[in-house]
Amino acid sequence: MKIGLLGLGTIGSGVYEHLSRRDDISVKRILELVRHPGLEHLETSDFNEILNDAEIDTVVELIGGMEPAHTFTVQALKAGKNVVSANKLMLSHHMEQILTLAREMGVHYRYDASVGGSIPFLYNLMRYRGADRLVGLSGIVNGTTNLILDVMQTDGRAFDDVLAEAQRMGYAEANPSADIDGIDAMCKLSIASAVAYQKYVRPEDIDTEGIRHITAGDIIHFKKMGRVCRLIASSALNADGSVSACVEPTLVPDASTEAAVRLNNNAISVTGEYFGVHTFMGQGAGKDPTAFAVELGLRDILEGVSPRLNPIPEGYARIDNAAAKRRYYVRTSAPLEIAASALSGGAYVTEPIGVRDMHRLAKKLRETDPGLFFAGISE
Amino acid sequence: MKIGLLGLGTIGSGVYEHLSRRDDISVKRILELVRHPGLEHLETSDFNEILNDAEIDTVVELIGGMEPAHTFTVQALKAGKNVVSANKLMLSHHMEQILTLAREMGVHYRYDASVGGSIPFLYNLMRYRGADRLVGLSGIVNGTTNLILDVMQTDGRAFDDVLAEAQRMGYAEANPSADIDGIDAMCKLSIASAVAYQKYVRPEDIDTEGIRHITAGDIIHFKKMGRVCRLIASSALNADGSVSACVEPTLVPDASTEAAVRLNNNAISVTGEYFGVHTFMGQGAGKDPTAFAVELGLRDILEGVSPRLNPIPEGYARIDNAAAKRRYYVRTSAPLEIAASALSGGAYVTEPIGVRDMHRLAKKLRETDPGLFFAGISE
Repeated sequence: MKIGLLGLGTIGSGVYEHLSRRDDISVKRILELVRHPGLEHLETSDFNEILNDAEIDTVVELIGGMEPAHTFTVQALKAGKNVVSANKLMLSHHMEQILTLAREMGVHYRYDASVGGSIPFLYNLMRYRGADRLVGLSGIVNGTTNLILDVMQTDGRAFDDVLAEAQRMGYAEANPSADIDGIDAMCKLSIASAVAYQKYVRPEDIDTEGIRHITAGDIIHFKKMGRVCRLIASSALNADGSVSACVEPTLVPDASTEAAVRLNNNAISVTGEYFGVHTFMGQGAGKDPTAFAVELGLRDILEGVSPRLNPIPEGYARIDNAAAKRRYYVRTSAPLEIAASALSGGAYVTEPIGVRDMHRLAKKLRETDPGLFFAGISE
Repeated sequence: MKIGLLGLGTIGSGVYEHLSRRDDISVKRILELVRHPGLEHLETSDFNEILNDAEIDTVVELIGGMEPAHTFTVQALKAGKNVVSANKLMLSHHMEQILTLAREMGVHYRYDASVGGSIPFLYNLMRYRGADRLVGLSGIVNGTTNLILDVMQTDGRAFDDVLAEAQRMGYAEANPSADIDGIDAMCKLSIASAVAYQKYVRPEDIDTEGIRHITAGDIIHFKKMGRVCRLIASSALNADGSVSACVEPTLVPDASTEAAVRLNNNAISVTGEYFGVHTFMGQGAGKDPTAFAVELGLRDILEGVSPRLNPIPEGYARIDNAAAKRRYYVRTSAPLEIAASALSGGAYVTEPIGVRDMHRLAKKLRETDPGLFFAGISE
């Protein structure tokens, strides 16, 4: 198997190192704008050198982001090359096109590494298909926000302070929006839900709220409530065939599995009608774990995977977040307008309210109170 | 695929129901001593009717225990039939013979359901092989003891009382020894360690202690220590190639993942040099979950699995439990003889001591104090 590697950043260099130890997979070309000592003979700035190299049967796309990742992926698939990728943003927005094209061309698009890093979540979801009916997903899929929330909870520090430290230590990006605004979690939930329910879920249909507005004062309230805040991505297959899906800060009990997920770890659960709840925990990101996941994807292609492990969803899910109701913690200086008990400091606990209604209400109230924070309260 | 089903107990009837919905796998014969209304045409009391039926290509062995399960399994494999089983006792004691025989005969022996019930633990361990080096296993692999420990912790009740209730509710067997003495966990650890390290681990080489002697008074001590007691099976690949392996009650921190494992759930972790720690949680037993795992095993055979997913360990691990040291909680009326701080009520916390030394010491002290209880204290 000969690889064209797109991107030699942290993950890309990890993949290169891992594959260097194998004799059945070799990296033939690396697409990079800058040159790396000792790898110049492999490096190119021209994607066509990979695209037009008939010996390269598989492209590993690790440049991330929407473009040029999307264009390169489509071109590679159309050229009859397999693609292995960890790109959740691009895939979640073009999943139908990418998977359909791969099937038409008779090649593989493996995206196991796009959700949960090294945790074999998507692979096992695919493996379960046909032996059980998957009806729910829930979990912590973004390590950066979990690290921030965990340190805030443990040390009582302010959000900005912890975020700045996470950025210095390389756990958060210079532009942290994708993580702290829940975008990354939204994309992963879109992909995992499509695999679980076999209907595509548009990212923009997922009610998404991040953790940007959480304060040390909020955390003091949570501690009094015996709760810990986690950014939870969840979806469910409703009885009428619709899907509910949201990403939001969620107050889970101190003794829950989610509360035990520390630092930048991930934990994702899937509910099947027969097997009950399976939870997968581990490092959701990082050089070696993600390179490991990419290597497994490559090996799946090399050894051949059953068609069941390469499912193509049919059509788009109808998203219905009106039925899902829960109580919310809301902290705002704006008049809340809904039934709620007041805590101190402008904080409230609402009566049960629909997920979509709460997200809409928050958007409206932010016109007068941009710093509003809210979090679902789990049962 | 035509199945000979051995045993129509709880799991067996679950498997029968699940397979009834498939058109690619059908149950042709059921070995049972008693007849079940509506299934008489399939049932036989003579294993030879399955063994000599050339149409039956796969045997599902769910009778459990050592004999006649072992004899029937060997006969089925020698007759060129695949075998799918959840029998951890038999497999852990005959793993080399069974796996070698299956390979010689060119058939499959799938035992995914033998560890963790529906949790796809062994399957994923096998899938990781070659992409990472597995160096450690640790977890809760027996649901019955976890249920007892969890209820004792939550309700402050006595061991005998909770065990009796678990028996009434069907969560514990009439003869509970295999569960509460750690035998079941020992067998599972033997199997999982062999898969992880690719060296067989004899069950009798594993230092094994159950929970039979725990009291409500012990639990009061643990609460003061901010700890929860769990029965943990763990093993590690040592730097010198030896393997350490033990099953023992272990005091884990209140906020740990293991403490968050409630009721009869399982949680098993594997450590890889690259991916870090992966933890798999879920129902480790029960009709539908185990039937689901058996169905996955059958489907693997039907669709074909890569040889990597069918590994044959080479030789036996040298077990060395002398190097692994930890502090222990010990409650005994006998003189303890080792360095320890005294708590109230005859309880002590020892200085770090080797695992093997502690298990040996406990055996010796039980000659004068049969009710002695001890538990490792995790870091």
